[in-house]
Amino acid sequence: MHIALDAMGGDHGPQELITGALLAAEQADVDICLVGDETILAKHVEVLAAGREAGRRLTIVHAPTTIGMDENPVDAIRKKRDSSIMVAFGLAKSGQAAAVVSAGNSGATLAAAVRTLGRLKNVARPGLASIFPTLKGPVVIMDVGANVECRPIHLYQFAVMASAFSRLYNVDKPRVGLLTIGEESGKGNSLVKETYALLHKSALNFIGNVEGRDVFLGDVDVIVCDGFVGNICLKISEGLAESAMKMLRDEILKSTMAKIGYLLARPAFKNFQKRVDYAEYGGAPLLGIKGIGIICHGKSSAYAIKNALIEAVEMERLNINEFISRELADGVTVPAEVV
Amino acid sequence: MHIALDAMGGDHGPQELITGALLAAEQADVDICLVGDETILAKHVEVLAAGREAGRRLTIVHAPTTIGMDENPVDAIRKKRDSSIMVAFGLAKSGQAAAVVSAGNSGATLAAAVRTLGRLKNVARPGLASIFPTLKGPVVIMDVGANVECRPIHLYQFAVMASAFSRLYNVDKPRVGLLTIGEESGKGNSLVKETYALLHKSALNFIGNVEGRDVFLGDVDVIVCDGFVGNICLKISEGLAESAMKMLRDEILKSTMAKIGYLLARPAFKNFQKRVDYAEYGGAPLLGIKGIGIICHGKSSAYAIKNALIEAVEMERLNINEFISRELADGVTVPAEVV
Repeated sequence: MHIALDAMGGDHGPQELITGALLAAEQADVDICLVGDETILAKHVEVLAAGREAGRRLTIVHAPTTIGMDENPVDAIRKKRDSSIMVAFGLAKSGQAAAVVSAGNSGATLAAAVRTLGRLKNVARPGLASIFPTLKGPVVIMDVGANVECRPIHLYQFAVMASAFSRLYNVDKPRVGLLTIGEESGKGNSLVKETYALLHKSALNFIGNVEGRDVFLGDVDVIVCDGFVGNICLKISEGLAESAMKMLRDEILKSTMAKIGYLLARPAFKNFQKRVDYAEYGGAPLLGIKGIGIICHGKSSAYAIKNALIEAVEMERLNINEFISRELADGVTVPAEVV
Repeated sequence: MHIALDAMGGDHGPQELITGALLAAEQADVDICLVGDETILAKHVEVLAAGREAGRRLTIVHAPTTIGMDENPVDAIRKKRDSSIMVAFGLAKSGQAAAVVSAGNSGATLAAAVRTLGRLKNVARPGLASIFPTLKGPVVIMDVGANVECRPIHLYQFAVMASAFSRLYNVDKPRVGLLTIGEESGKGNSLVKETYALLHKSALNFIGNVEGRDVFLGDVDVIVCDGFVGNICLKISEGLAESAMKMLRDEILKSTMAKIGYLLARPAFKNFQKRVDYAEYGGAPLLGIKGIGIICHGKSSAYAIKNALIEAVEMERLNINEFISRELADGVTVPAEVV
């Protein structure tokens, strides 16, 4: 299986991305097309792949331009058809790659994916899913930013797609929750109330409303919400985790005793960080497109990139898209008035 | 100054609430009317206030019924006019109390406050503000659940009211941010885009859009959003903080070395917890009503109740409501089409 990696995107530059590609090729049966400036990439590959068997599984596909992190996504993908992101999706379109992984401009990656590959049949809106760590297992939240304004049918389809994706975590009958501000069925805004009715009569394993405080408990496998709310949830969680670690570090650095204590407890801290680290879960898959596209955090480490590449391999192996298409073809009949 | 405390609400029972009242009376010049079953309250006061000077600042006002945590708020306040929450707001209405503090059913407290005291002139919708700890100082977020569906004028007024409230933290020209999913002015849903225009031309110190990840950085004093988004932010932050602490504790308990390390670093952990503990910030004020109403977490400790009572004293002392009325009378002219 070939996967295209936008080797120019991300905050840490091509070295980190290429290192991730090598790690993935060492762990799984996968070939990786590094897309980007061939002179730059060849130089890095020469150094990083020296003496590593996995080096033979990397190829370079030239793309002369790149899309910056701050460029307007829609403008950029229209003007820079020869950018690494666009060339990567071109490889997916032509069948030369089964999936695309990018840590570059996420809006541009999203737009390029939908524009180049198109939507799966019957999918009204592709959406971005994100995997959150919880006290028990991971929970898939969708949408986390692709669709700012949604209708009930979109949330229903997010539930179907995210349920299909949760097969990656060996979840048999994924429990689906609807994110809102109270547990009773009447709680929430009008979007939530209408979506509740739709999910309630669907074939999904819908367990009802969930509140913000339930997200990290692990008693639900899939949580649906519109992309505005989902993106704020994602960002606020990241922000809180980072700020809390900073505050804790500040306090520890104030006393020598606390510093010694921290050193003794460090393995526990490391295990904790591993449990909550988004890098463990790869990237955010864009579900509902004809193909596989995974959007990684700009600051992804090589380890996170490796996991995103493995995630793409797994999505292909488990036929997630076929599963989505089948569910949306045979699934619940959606009344015309809510579409 | 007299403050009415719903002495029957909350998960920990009257003891915790009365202890909080005693602590407040020991710290500030305040008299507290404990509202609830007089037989029960008198028994607790006898024990808890024994030998404490502050005991003389407590009085008991009888209320024969209570509203349970799971009762429907609107039904409950209509049917139970003699409940501790309703009697407490009755004291505020008649001028016998300057403020009400409750850790009981929050929906009922909210409804009772609006129903009994009414709105301040020119306030379209009262809203609930919450104080979040950040890397720098506290940030006030409004609305966190009183208004599920909002219009731009409501968010603008939340900004005015929360700015007035932030005087409690000695903030001179509070920096106001609009919670959305991107920093540029065009980012967000239609509510956010229209609110942006309104805030931009207002007299407020509007610094533009803020994202979820900015909430805990402390570079903004006031953040506005609709009550659906705000409530989810509040609950997800609480849930993440609790779950993360549980995970960290699990990891520490796995090794003796880590346990020793934790013991050495415990003062640092305690300081950290103090910095992020909502109990430090009292309760959530309902702003925009003719009076002062503070809603506390059901699981509030005596310490949190004490801080909520002190918060009420400060709100009265600083004339927050007068400030809000003046701002909304002289403030920016809101174009008719957005009201």
